[in-house]
Amino acid sequence: MINKKLLKALSFISFAFVAQSQASEGMWQPHQLKDISAELKKAGLALDPKQMQNLDQFPMNAIISLGGCTASFLSEQGLVVTNHHCAYGSIQYNSSEDNNLLEQGFVAKSLAEEVQAAPGSRVYVTESLTNVTDKVTGNIPASVKGEAYFKAIESNEKALVAACETSQDYRCEVYSFHGGLEYFLIKQLAIRDVRLVYAPPSSIGKFGGDTDNWMWPRHTGDWAFYRAYVNKDGKPADYSKDNVPFKPKAFLKVNANGVEENDYVMVLGYPGRTNRYRTAQEVENQFTWVYPTAKRYREEYIDIIKTVAPEGSDARIKYESTLAGLANYAKNYGSMMESFSKGDMLQRKQNELAELQAWVNASSERKRQYGKTLDELNALILQSQENQARGLILAYIGRTNLMGVSKRLYRLAHENEKPDAERKQGYQERDMNRFTQGMKRVNRRYDAEVDKAVLAHFIAQYAQFPKAERNLAFDKFFGLDKGFDAAKLAKQLDAMHSNTQLDEEAMRLAWMKKPVKAFKESKDPYIQYAVSQYENDTKLEKQAQELAGKLAQIRPQFMSAMIAFKQSKGEPVYADANGSLRITFGNVKGYSPQDGLVATPFTTLEGMLAKYIAGDHEFDLFENIRRAIADKNYGNYYRKSLDSVPVNYLSTLDITGGNSGSPTLNSKGEFVGLVFDGVYESIIGDWDYNPTYNRAIHTSVPFMLWTMEKIDGAQNIVDEMTIVR
Amino acid sequence: MINKKLLKALSFISFAFVAQSQASEGMWQPHQLKDISAELKKAGLALDPKQMQNLDQFPMNAIISLGGCTASFLSEQGLVVTNHHCAYGSIQYNSSEDNNLLEQGFVAKSLAEEVQAAPGSRVYVTESLTNVTDKVTGNIPASVKGEAYFKAIESNEKALVAACETSQDYRCEVYSFHGGLEYFLIKQLAIRDVRLVYAPPSSIGKFGGDTDNWMWPRHTGDWAFYRAYVNKDGKPADYSKDNVPFKPKAFLKVNANGVEENDYVMVLGYPGRTNRYRTAQEVENQFTWVYPTAKRYREEYIDIIKTVAPEGSDARIKYESTLAGLANYAKNYGSMMESFSKGDMLQRKQNELAELQAWVNASSERKRQYGKTLDELNALILQSQENQARGLILAYIGRTNLMGVSKRLYRLAHENEKPDAERKQGYQERDMNRFTQGMKRVNRRYDAEVDKAVLAHFIAQYAQFPKAERNLAFDKFFGLDKGFDAAKLAKQLDAMHSNTQLDEEAMRLAWMKKPVKAFKESKDPYIQYAVSQYENDTKLEKQAQELAGKLAQIRPQFMSAMIAFKQSKGEPVYADANGSLRITFGNVKGYSPQDGLVATPFTTLEGMLAKYIAGDHEFDLFENIRRAIADKNYGNYYRKSLDSVPVNYLSTLDITGGNSGSPTLNSKGEFVGLVFDGVYESIIGDWDYNPTYNRAIHTSVPFMLWTMEKIDGAQNIVDEMTIVR
Repeated sequence: MINKKLLKALSFISFAFVAQSQASEGMWQPHQLKDISAELKKAGLALDPKQMQNLDQFPMNAIISLGGCTASFLSEQGLVVTNHHCAYGSIQYNSSEDNNLLEQGFVAKSLAEEVQAAPGSRVYVTESLTNVTDKVTGNIPASVKGEAYFKAIESNEKALVAACETSQDYRCEVYSFHGGLEYFLIKQLAIRDVRLVYAPPSSIGKFGGDTDNWMWPRHTGDWAFYRAYVNKDGKPADYSKDNVPFKPKAFLKVNANGVEENDYVMVLGYPGRTNRYRTAQEVENQFTWVYPTAKRYREEYIDIIKTVAPEGSDARIKYESTLAGLANYAKNYGSMMESFSKGDMLQRKQNELAELQAWVNASSERKRQYGKTLDELNALILQSQENQARGLILAYIGRTNLMGVSKRLYRLAHENEKPDAERKQGYQERDMNRFTQGMKRVNRRYDAEVDKAVLAHFIAQYAQFPKAERNLAFDKFFGLDKGFDAAKLAKQLDAMHSNTQLDEEAMRLAWMKKPVKAFKESKDPYIQYAVSQYENDTKLEKQAQELAGKLAQIRPQFMSAMIAFKQSKGEPVYADANGSLRITFGNVKGYSPQDGLVATPFTTLEGMLAKYIAGDHEFDLFENIRRAIADKNYGNYYRKSLDSVPVNYLSTLDITGGNSGSPTLNSKGEFVGLVFDGVYESIIGDWDYNPTYNRAIHTSVPFMLWTMEKIDGAQNIVDEMTIVR
Repeated sequence: MINKKLLKALSFISFAFVAQSQASEGMWQPHQLKDISAELKKAGLALDPKQMQNLDQFPMNAIISLGGCTASFLSEQGLVVTNHHCAYGSIQYNSSEDNNLLEQGFVAKSLAEEVQAAPGSRVYVTESLTNVTDKVTGNIPASVKGEAYFKAIESNEKALVAACETSQDYRCEVYSFHGGLEYFLIKQLAIRDVRLVYAPPSSIGKFGGDTDNWMWPRHTGDWAFYRAYVNKDGKPADYSKDNVPFKPKAFLKVNANGVEENDYVMVLGYPGRTNRYRTAQEVENQFTWVYPTAKRYREEYIDIIKTVAPEGSDARIKYESTLAGLANYAKNYGSMMESFSKGDMLQRKQNELAELQAWVNASSERKRQYGKTLDELNALILQSQENQARGLILAYIGRTNLMGVSKRLYRLAHENEKPDAERKQGYQERDMNRFTQGMKRVNRRYDAEVDKAVLAHFIAQYAQFPKAERNLAFDKFFGLDKGFDAAKLAKQLDAMHSNTQLDEEAMRLAWMKKPVKAFKESKDPYIQYAVSQYENDTKLEKQAQELAGKLAQIRPQFMSAMIAFKQSKGEPVYADANGSLRITFGNVKGYSPQDGLVATPFTTLEGMLAKYIAGDHEFDLFENIRRAIADKNYGNYYRKSLDSVPVNYLSTLDITGGNSGSPTLNSKGEFVGLVFDGVYESIIGDWDYNPTYNRAIHTSVPFMLWTMEKIDGAQNIVDEMTIVR
């Protein structure tokens, strides 16, 4: 019943976007564009906001998802542009020692030269967005609570998805907004013949490497081109020579002049996740416990890998991407902790919640409806944090390869006993392609010595936890219930890794088909591990779902109050990012990262050359690019105000992970760059958008076209695009 | 004979200062000011350059040396301002656990409250600068070469100094310019009753600590005030209650408004050492061997101290300043290596020398005079580098406390056998005050375990050198001639440190009086070490002096050619810094440390507050300063363009170590700040002034006066100064 009331409140969402609103903050859903049309116009948009919310039309129809990254169509022949780091797997997949595309780059001079993207690559074209709140939560009786509520939602979602996914040509998903206040069903055409068209060498596409990641000044050519192929009927199809380029309903024109300081820009894309409406308690716990602890675990994890797999070893090569991922988020968490300790987010959150409560209490109707909401929500949040220390360390233990593999396989055996519709999400027929890819990938990233060392390290740490906080099934399997013995543990880990067959791809794939009984009878130590944990894991999952069900009822209530409160103050209301299509708009603009220092909005080719370090894996540059810069061979892309070619630029746009590869559009909807990162000071933006420090980093079109024409010899791709000069 | 010719060339030095000259490059000698008066006027100087070269007059007479740092008079009552880091020893000397002046700061509210500076503190007022080239090298017969030439110079210098130092009220020194082309005798009044008047707390005076050292943005209040006292006759005297403030012939007025962007500024002071005229060979060796190797030794030294003396230990406290010094120059060398590898200094040097040689060869007279100079110089330089690997590692070994102490004491015993005039510089009667202070200071910085670990580490590394490159006396003492045995060495070091008495101050002072014989008979292992090395050290010194003598003849010849060559191109010619009084002038100006980033010329109070980290030893701020900033309690020091009070600022001035504490003057000669550092990118400036990156960092007068008035309660000192508002 609560949902009916909340749904009423929804009719107000985002109708107000008034003067107090922070410029550039907000990740707007397409259907909201009409409501903020005055702001969009004022900011400089020349397109009709109403047209923009139509998924069938330009420019929205040109915006596509790659699953995790965003991309866009740049020609009527299905030419797709995204970030180099989004196409990295496909470039790597087509590389060999003799033909290292990552190092040398790749240009298909004709359709025939295009190569298949990595297995599992998809181009998703969003065809419809439907508000299905009524069908997800509207039909659940008021008596249904906790785990039952969670399962009712899950069941409703699965039914909606099943009805929507009429064939493997479509991928459907239900997205929750405002913590479950609204649900949208998103239907996407899933194109599965994707080919690599062009990637610059990593010395351009990944220039600056991890060192420059999240940093300004930046000089990265973070672009790559795919092409989407369909069968002769225009339908998605498996790879075939007979397939033809997909013809999108819309594609973006490319503005060769790029942007100038203060220009209107917008990014259309699929931002992953933000936490702008978390409570003070959640914020405090996250910044004072979760991030510091996770950062430490990551640093320890990195140290172990570096020790056991020294530079130059085969094992090290396998763990390079694991290392990069660990380091990446250690840095990310570090930045957030730094910004948090310097800023006043927690105080503001606390103030806001106090104000919210006061506002609720000031009206008897609101008090009746929301008077206890915040307290109830906080109680559930506290409950969810009770075992977080155990949860976090077991999660890092579970990152080792075979722990996850064995548990997923055993879970699959259990799910396979049910009809498809009743299986857990991730274990349904529709998920089996991804599941198989995951099982195939393991060996590329696995070395027994490294994983054993990681396990030994973290299990030793976990063993120091008070018994009451431990996981008894886990303790029992590793004999920790009888006290911790490092030598014994080492011996057990040795035996597990010597005797398991899960380190063989064929065995993993074979286990995907086996029944529960086979697992129970198996002598494989990792299978035995999975079996030994199952019952307890199921119990914990049940508890988690009970809590999730409660939260799925109370958080929408909280968000409903928060939205009404914010609207009463005239503040903008947009939903947290959730991987669905959004638009964010703002301006090209530098910033002052600190007193006495100004980040100017553009970098130049000369700055790229100044970073050059011969032979360095992050800052090397081929001789042809060095010579072209030294010779000032700028071609048509010289900009007088910079006395050079603009390389990267800054904007105030509100983006996050998932926006990678998103096109940046000017006021006319022309392509003026790709967004690919944010500055260090904006990492905390996932929790708190700060107009002073929040800056997105884009690669410029003049730099892209200059590189394609002068460096990479990709004139044929330039010619295929519609260039506005 | 050669010198007569070179002296003729000298008449040209610095007559030309034409358009090509780099703005702000140059550390000019006072007598050169008349020659560059057009440039000074053009840059904005309102004073008469001729007046400025007069040491008896304002402003030069207000500029003083503290020996290693510069300072200036700010009142007719002998009030002296310098950097906080220049007065650090005196603040520390007056601190106790109960009364920690470093932490709390210090303000004498009256003359009576002023406290004595650290023992040995001096205020040196330069009274005369006399060109004594004729008397140093002009009278040496042409037949005198090598070591004899070196000794002849030394003897001439000592005679000049002895004649000049009519009493302990004067300190005289002969300074060599252009590698020995010119010599000046500098006579300074040496005031020896120096008292501490005012120092801000370290959280202001050392704000930013080592982290911000050499960095911009900067927010450091790096000032402290002394007062010079003399007896009632106006003569220097030992400390006495009856002494009275010294009345300088000139003092500087303080401009409360400070400076604006682009303003003319100049720094008058005593820069220590630059290497702007080194050959390509010297540059290459320094940047590709000396700095990288020394940086590594320093980092290893630091690691050992940190391991043996963990944070919080008593030993660690003793080594904090050693650590800071090691880290300071490891960072310094790192910056230089970075700038060197990014820049083209070596190429330019090589080109310049090739051009010089071509220019010399183009005239038969020049060819006769200088044709072989560069080759001869390079041959000597190569010779000087022959044993540099041994020399450098033994120098780091020799940094341990008792190695240096024992050798200096034994050398003193030898020197004491000679008449004072014949003793080596540093061991004469006039040096004994400093020598004694040095011997007293040892225990504050010494811990046996740390020094033993350092010795064990570096001796083990040294033992890996090929035998031919080793020092046989050293090898013999440590038994390395019989092969390296780490356990045996450790045992020997243990025994040396257990049995020596040189770790007692009284013993060290006692040894200062003992004859050579007593050393030879001593059983003290460190004394035995010094005795065992003496003969070989003397031999090495003789070799070094032979080489130095040759260089003292050939380098002036090279510099004479270089000066003539540069003048032929209209390039400015100033001498390398050598600790003598200089002036450098330029403008208040920001810079771009790299593409996409601009350092603005001023920082503000808000930026200082933004760096605040509660309880951090580098970035803590007392509550009163935080409140004053938060309340925008700016008083008279608000600047509209910054919407705050300017804290530090940047200028293009050409400075180096020794300039610390130098007053910054505006076009009228008013005090507008203290120079206290350079930016990271300008560290290489000691070798190569780069107008793009070379920036000096100054503390602003508005910040200084604001702090004195609003924070530190030093109104009485403000009132004593002549403030121009």
